[in-house]
Amino acid sequence: MEERLKKQFAFALEIDKEKRIGRQTYCSDGETLENDAEHAWHAALMAVLFSEYSNEPVDVLKVVKMLLIHDIVEIDAGDTYAYDDAGIATQAEREQKAAERIYNILPEDQARELMALWQEFEALETPEAKYAKAMDNLQPAMLNAATDGRAWKEHEVKLSKILKRNQNTEKGAAVLWQYGLEHFVQPHVAKGNIEQDV
Amino acid sequence: MEERLKKQFAFALEIDKEKRIGRQTYCSDGETLENDAEHAWHAALMAVLFSEYSNEPVDVLKVVKMLLIHDIVEIDAGDTYAYDDAGIATQAEREQKAAERIYNILPEDQARELMALWQEFEALETPEAKYAKAMDNLQPAMLNAATDGRAWKEHEVKLSKILKRNQNTEKGAAVLWQYGLEHFVQPHVAKGNIEQDV
Repeated sequence: MEERLKKQFAFALEIDKEKRIGRQTYCSDGETLENDAEHAWHAALMAVLFSEYSNEPVDVLKVVKMLLIHDIVEIDAGDTYAYDDAGIATQAEREQKAAERIYNILPEDQARELMALWQEFEALETPEAKYAKAMDNLQPAMLNAATDGRAWKEHEVKLSKILKRNQNTEKGAAVLWQYGLEHFVQPHVAKGNIEQDV
Repeated sequence: MEERLKKQFAFALEIDKEKRIGRQTYCSDGETLENDAEHAWHAALMAVLFSEYSNEPVDVLKVVKMLLIHDIVEIDAGDTYAYDDAGIATQAEREQKAAERIYNILPEDQARELMALWQEFEALETPEAKYAKAMDNLQPAMLNAATDGRAWKEHEVKLSKILKRNQNTEKGAAVLWQYGLEHFVQPHVAKGNIEQDV
């Protein structure tokens, strides 16, 4: 048991590094860029709050676990911005390598379990993965809207890209995407913070 | 439904402020002080990893929910350092007032549910509350040990205080407290980073 505990605590300490992985989303203060650990906490809590709107019934614990771990690979692979096409081209390979190193710090059974959960999230096929991805997308959209579209403006994000990315949000929670489109996206198209290219 | 969604998103946005509530624990880089959102994410993920060691069987989803929300009251009440006796004297009243304002941003049923969950955590009577508290205590102890006891040294924390506080950790997960005592606390007593007053 001592050996098992050592591995589990080594992993628990290793993932602390996620707090230093920066994202491109501004927090609601409009000044501080969010980090991955903050994002994971926020998205996991939103998954609890909004589960009634999932398109399909979901195992909420499974969704929450997915969201708590979904960015751990970025400790090695870094955050790839949602609208960075060059980064996205190499993302899968970098993240797979990261997953192998980091999850294998755990005892074998837990390494296997969490790796499978992360792969399920990435594959976007199960109800849990689709609903978790909806939270992963809605959380930054909510913050971007609340900060006068600052991140959208700085990255000159086009409406077509937002709509394409959020096809996944709709697949997980159509009601929430409809709300997000009306309350987060459209007002910032109207204000010119998002470029209307479609 | 529009009215319900508005309240739920208003709450989701309000809790973003938790990312700016600082704690007295250094992250594993030894330089950056942790914030409440990072701590909640870390403790919730540890609850998933270590549930096999809970003294009593627990509903892991309930524990994770507790940990995700347990510091929301600090948005208004601030973080009260575990070893700040003066702050602790007024903590309950400040936090109760904060809970009433913040949770009531939600629709009534969810406000009631999350308030009850927070109160259950604070009361430390159910298996879930005890195990959640063990995570809330072990997470900073692990980080303090990993950062050469910096936070313990800066606050001149005495061993008697650590032992008293962690009676709760033992009630939730005795195996983990035994590990923490041996691997996190005792080496730093030996090094003089924690004052041995008992």
